[in-house]
Amino acid sequence: MKPIKVGLLGIGTVGAGTFNVLKRNQQEITRRAGRGIEITMVADLNTERARELTNGECEVVSDANLVVNHPDIDIVIELIGGYGIAKDLVLKAIANGKHVVTANKALLATHGNEIFKAAQDQGVMVAFEAAVAGGIPIIKALREGLTANRIEWIAGIINGTTNFILSEMRDKGLDFDVALKEAQRLGYAEADPTFDIEGIDAAHKATIMAAIAFGIPMQFEKAYVEGITTLQATDILYAEELGYRIKLLGIAKRAHVNGQEGIELRVHPTLIPEKRLIANVEGAMNAVLVHGDAVGATLYYGKGAGAEPTASAVIADLVDITRLATADPEHRVPHLAFQPDAMTDTPILPMSEITTSYYLRMHVADLPGVLADVTRILADASISIDAMLQKEPAEGESQTDIVILTHQTQEKNIVAAIAKMEALSTVVGKVIKIRLEELS
Amino acid sequence: MKPIKVGLLGIGTVGAGTFNVLKRNQQEITRRAGRGIEITMVADLNTERARELTNGECEVVSDANLVVNHPDIDIVIELIGGYGIAKDLVLKAIANGKHVVTANKALLATHGNEIFKAAQDQGVMVAFEAAVAGGIPIIKALREGLTANRIEWIAGIINGTTNFILSEMRDKGLDFDVALKEAQRLGYAEADPTFDIEGIDAAHKATIMAAIAFGIPMQFEKAYVEGITTLQATDILYAEELGYRIKLLGIAKRAHVNGQEGIELRVHPTLIPEKRLIANVEGAMNAVLVHGDAVGATLYYGKGAGAEPTASAVIADLVDITRLATADPEHRVPHLAFQPDAMTDTPILPMSEITTSYYLRMHVADLPGVLADVTRILADASISIDAMLQKEPAEGESQTDIVILTHQTQEKNIVAAIAKMEALSTVVGKVIKIRLEELS
Repeated sequence: MKPIKVGLLGIGTVGAGTFNVLKRNQQEITRRAGRGIEITMVADLNTERARELTNGECEVVSDANLVVNHPDIDIVIELIGGYGIAKDLVLKAIANGKHVVTANKALLATHGNEIFKAAQDQGVMVAFEAAVAGGIPIIKALREGLTANRIEWIAGIINGTTNFILSEMRDKGLDFDVALKEAQRLGYAEADPTFDIEGIDAAHKATIMAAIAFGIPMQFEKAYVEGITTLQATDILYAEELGYRIKLLGIAKRAHVNGQEGIELRVHPTLIPEKRLIANVEGAMNAVLVHGDAVGATLYYGKGAGAEPTASAVIADLVDITRLATADPEHRVPHLAFQPDAMTDTPILPMSEITTSYYLRMHVADLPGVLADVTRILADASISIDAMLQKEPAEGESQTDIVILTHQTQEKNIVAAIAKMEALSTVVGKVIKIRLEELS
Repeated sequence: MKPIKVGLLGIGTVGAGTFNVLKRNQQEITRRAGRGIEITMVADLNTERARELTNGECEVVSDANLVVNHPDIDIVIELIGGYGIAKDLVLKAIANGKHVVTANKALLATHGNEIFKAAQDQGVMVAFEAAVAGGIPIIKALREGLTANRIEWIAGIINGTTNFILSEMRDKGLDFDVALKEAQRLGYAEADPTFDIEGIDAAHKATIMAAIAFGIPMQFEKAYVEGITTLQATDILYAEELGYRIKLLGIAKRAHVNGQEGIELRVHPTLIPEKRLIANVEGAMNAVLVHGDAVGATLYYGKGAGAEPTASAVIADLVDITRLATADPEHRVPHLAFQPDAMTDTPILPMSEITTSYYLRMHVADLPGVLADVTRILADASISIDAMLQKEPAEGESQTDIVILTHQTQEKNIVAAIAKMEALSTVVGKVIKIRLEELS
């Protein structure tokens, strides 16, 4: 059987990695796929660099339309990124009856519904293992490996940049700004790190995982997104003293509010017990914890970024498509794990309705009765206290920190309680609130 | 489309779990599979219990042949276990053109080549996610998720019973016998625990993983198998002092000996650095670490046994078959990850040829020159020392323990060196040897 022909859009870091791994492991990959898989065309604005990277082994063009319109191309890999031209090209490729592989989480989280609808209508596959957690086959695990389960929740460290920064902050007691600069120096953070440190990248990935875990459309616009830019080294230390690590988690969870099912979809710094395996995922590594009703907790760990780990996922998708291309499109693995006509409209819950535990830190005057006032406010709101830490004031200081870990409560309750605490004359400044998940 | 019809052979713990999960999550599973999946026949010698468990919702027979020969059955689930009748029934089901799902690692590791050949000839699928690491979708990860990679090695905690026993020995300082009794009392070990504690079960699973990772036939008879029955609490303590945990690992690894490629396939207690995530997998949990040349290290963690975790894997296979049944048998996912005509005959290396590091413990007379003699033997064999621990003799004792961690060397070298050490008049009794893997 003749090799399957692949057109590559964008030969940057991941594109070059894909080209190289495909070439290096061609024999191994062909043994698995049953036929060769060859990149025969590359589109990149920098044609000179593209020619160098591909050693003249394939046709290089600057106009990506030439690839998506080429009759010989079976699969298009989109590695351009962003929502603009990438979206147009993916839709054109689909319209031309080509299968698509993409690592573009931003595109899928925001325009996935339109793209998958188009693919469904055309009977082609759009595969996106590389869009979430790099080389870890988490999309496959959710879409195929755990199909017996009612998925209850997912919690993932799905952004390597922020995990690296948090690891540095904890290891070396650094402040956020210093750790960010270190991450940039080492290439773990981009010059403009906004998407990573503000949690947007993690929210794109959480949105995609929520869709395939629960059979709901992509709803990035409804995700709650909080990054790590305001996180203080102090809180990392206090958390550690209490037996917790702080990680930026992407969380997707089934919940029930007033008897109605809803989905929590949120990204924020989170305290997790240090004894959990996922709490010990350090540096730029990724890990996703999935809880299914039959299987219980399963964890998937590996490199979430980088040229070859991401290429590993892109090529796995190429092999999948090669293996499944002959299957009846109506019945083969659905793009989003659930059949298109079996998606539900379970709503994403507003943040005020979610339920979790909380870490609270407040700076208070070292006076009698402060703790009584604060705990009274929590008691009145029926919020139980799980642990507390009160520090002696530093030498010559008249103020001190109180740290409280609460039991589970709804976000709106804690927000109301915090407002009351901040109104106390003895509480100085803002009360710091960080969510806490036991992940048990 | 009408539901796919499944016949279940053997309704013990896992069979009942499969029946229950399939029923409980029928709606969710149908939404994913695109059609219903129903167990319509159950064969079990204990028909009374089978009828109770299935609430009269399906036909119960005592003769499994009635199921594998029934024209309405599309998929047969084999949960009988063992090599005898299970093998006959699986082969009959295949001959009758039925797809097969099995959790039977012993059967596959010993008769898999014959079974997969028969399935290939008939154009049916034999799926076995439940055969390795219970609910963790590790077969899928190896066979589909990591297809871009040249897999370099796999190291797994793939037997929950022994991991539970080792965790107890370390946590509570128990001896093996006591920890085994505790495991039996809690239901983590069977009345006859031989298959688990002697490493045979883990070797079955390692054999299967090696086949799909490297594209080689099942060769259980060539696996090196060493259990945990002779492991002493002392060595767990010394290992800990040196920063290591002892786990029973199933290892499959590419190696080169004298320029020839070979495969290491071995199960034995292994020291691993405590900072590795997999070193912190406790109790009856399973985890598999896979190293691919592109993706680097990935880890898969979850419950390796139990009714519902195993059912999770069995049902995922049912969904896979339902989704892929229409694909061209020549090209859909191959049973063993590689196309049948692309398997290699890379040899399994004899244990004397494998390369690893070692933990050595010897009991020696507390006399000058002992250490010099021992280290001279290692130096003469070009074996470097990585760390050493020498204890003061206990009060009133004239003998003491020396513990040495070596760098990598071939097994035959260490065996020869140990023979020389044991011949020293100052070394008392046997030298304890435990292999050590850095897993980096």
